[in-house]
Order: sequence, then structure tokens, then C-alpha cells
Amino acid sequence: MAQQGRAALTRRRLIQSAAQSFDTHGFRDAGLAEISSAAGVSNGALHFHFDTKEALAAAVEDEAMEALGRLWEPAARSVPAPPSLQQLIDATHALAAMLREDVVVRAAFRMRYEGAAGIGRADPRAAWESFVAARLDEAAAEHTLAEGVPPQDAAQTITATTAGFEILGRTDPIWLSEDALLAFWRLLLPRLAAPEALARFSFAPSGAGSN
Amino acid sequence: MAQQGRAALTRRRLIQSAAQSFDTHGFRDAGLAEISSAAGVSNGALHFHFDTKEALAAAVEDEAMEALGRLWEPAARSVPAPPSLQQLIDATHALAAMLREDVVVRAAFRMRYEGAAGIGRADPRAAWESFVAARLDEAAAEHTLAEGVPPQDAAQTITATTAGFEILGRTDPIWLSEDALLAFWRLLLPRLAAPEALARFSFAPSGAGSN
Repeated sequence: MAQQGRAALTRRRLIQSAAQSFDTHGFRDAGLAEISSAAGVSNGALHFHFDTKEALAAAVEDEAMEALGRLWEPAARSVPAPPSLQQLIDATHALAAMLREDVVVRAAFRMRYEGAAGIGRADPRAAWESFVAARLDEAAAEHTLAEGVPPQDAAQTITATTAGFEILGRTDPIWLSEDALLAFWRLLLPRLAAPEALARFSFAPSGAGSN
Repeated sequence: MAQQGRAALTRRRLIQSAAQSFDTHGFRDAGLAEISSAAGVSNGALHFHFDTKEALAAAVEDEAMEALGRLWEPAARSVPAPPSLQQLIDATHALAAMLREDVVVRAAFRMRYEGAAGIGRADPRAAWESFVAARLDEAAAEHTLAEGVPPQDAAQTITATTAGFEILGRTDPIWLSEDALLAFWRLLLPRLAAPEALARFSFAPSGAGSN
């Protein structure tokens, strides 16, 4: 039991350390020696848990996927569920907070941006793109999307803008601040939302499902 | 003369090779040995032209700045100058084309995203941000910006979205395609432009100043 606990702890430390290294150097240039030494773990222990750098990257991606799931599941489960556009607004705020605070999520996004793809089965960036696209399709079905706004155009733009906040936020955290998100939604939402629905939405996180 | 021509050619080759390496590995993890060998140049010749990796990076940035200048100067010089919002639309299309085709511009943007900053005096990413902000301030002064749209919110969003196109375009060139830009402007321009001015703008490059 204590043995298992120690093994789980070592595994966690290695994932955190790998995420730190992938986030700093990218997958290609991250070194296993640096990862094990920063985790305070021997090279042998690293290889006991992870066969290859790819296996470590897959574990980072799996953990990032779990974090993303925690980001959007509560709102979807709350009754009544908030309108889809509000779920989307809330999720962008929550994603920005994760990218500020969670090196595992940051590393997972960076790896996919670099084309270190096909690593694990989980693709957090693709999951985010699907989430955005699904909320906009739902908003169109709910008639809260403004007429003449193709959901796909909106999904592309929001995906690109959140990717931009992520990359710019790496060197200047102000891009991942709540203010940056508010400015974005103040600009975009009046174009996105059907005029009669606009007043139902909050540019700031609505707090729905957040407990 | 032949000697000078050869030196200039070697210098150009080194800048191209360095850009390729910075673009692939990032500044931090790019190696001088790889840069000189890919340029077909001896290590000694590299050091004759560039003292340090920082000097190479500064040269890449200087060349990217010249390319960016060629991107926006013609429109500004044409008479009559196109409205500022059209200059901005045209410039986003031209930037996307550069990011698709010019490894020097791509490398220069990547280095700044990575915080390999303070390298040279030229900062192409900051220059792009200033260009975007200036066109939106001008549009406000020209009364072609919709009422209630703060130019700064618009500048932030456009800066973030273009950064997103750049980073997503690294693994999937469709993000830097003309179609992606058209979808973005179809979505954003009706919110950005004063209603009475909207019809004056083209989502596609206007061709102004392009000769």
C-alpha cells in the first residue's frame, strides 16, 4: 500500500516534471535526463514508469484531458443547463485560468501546436476545438446565434483567438487575464448572439455549474 | 567585388538556415553547428559573420522587419490611401501569405512568442501589434469604426486571432489560407465597421497599393 502510494507519487512527479520540460523546450527538445532529475527520480525509476518520451507525453495529454473535462462537464450537468453561448463564454474564462496555472494543460496544448502529434490517444487541443464547435452548433439550434452567422466561421475564429491568447500569454500573462477575455467577448458577442438573446448573456463567467 | 558578393551570399545563406533552425527548434534549442552545416558553410565562416547565436537571431529579426515593411508600406503610400480598415484587412491577408511562405518571418514571430526577446532592436511581433492598433485608431478618427467599439478591444482581438492563425497554421496550413481569413473578416467586420461604411470594404484583399 505504502509502496503503491510511493509509486503513484513518483509517477505524478514525473508527469509534472515532463510537462514543465515539454512546456519549456517542446516535445522534440525535451530531455529525459532533465525530466528525471527535476523530478528527483533516478533514470531507472523513470524507465520503470515510462518506456519512452512518447509514453510520458501521452500521460501528460491524458491528464490535460481530465482537466479539460472538469472544465466543461459541470455546466453541462447543471439543471437547467446554461445556454450554449454562455457555456462557451464560461469555458474560455476557465481555459485561460488553466493555461495560467496548470503546466500540464499548457504543455499539452504546446505539444499539439508543434505537431508533436499522434503521441497519445487523447488530443486536448482537438477536444477544445470540438467543444467550441459543438456549443456554436447548439446555439444555432437554440436560435440564440445571430442570423447570418455561420457557426463554423464563429468556431474557427474563437478557436484561433483562444490559441492566440495561449501563445501570447506565454510571454505576457495579461493575454490570459480575465480583462483580455472580457474585451474579446464585449467585441464579439454582440455580433454572435441574436439581438433578442444578447441580454441573457454575461461577458464574465456566469458561475453556472461552478461548485 | 566577387569576394564581397560571396560574403553577402554566405551571410544570406546563414540567415536562411538560422531561420529554419529557429523556426523548427526555437531559439533556445537551435544549434550553431546545425545552422552552419545546413547552410553549407564552415563553423569558422559562421563566426566570421556572426559572433553569437543572438547576432544571428537579430539578423533574422531585421530581415523579417524589412519584409513586414514591404507588406504595409505600399498601401500607406498609394494615393488615395485605402481606408484604414481596408489596409488592416489587406495586411492580415498579406501577413498570412508571408507566414505560409517566408521562414524568416515565421522564425521571427516564433522567437518572440517564446520569450527569446531582447535579441535584436527590431521586434516584428510588436511592430505588427502597433500596425494593427494604429489602423484601428485611424479608423475611429475616420468614423469608419462602429460606435461603441473601443479600438483597443478590437486591436487586442485581431492581434490574438492573427497569433492564433500563425500557431495553428504551423501544423495545419489551412489556418493561414485565404478562406480562413475571409471567414474571420465576414464574422468580425460587420461588428467593427460603422454600418454606413461597411459596404466600402472588401473581405478579400483589395489589391490597393499592390504593384
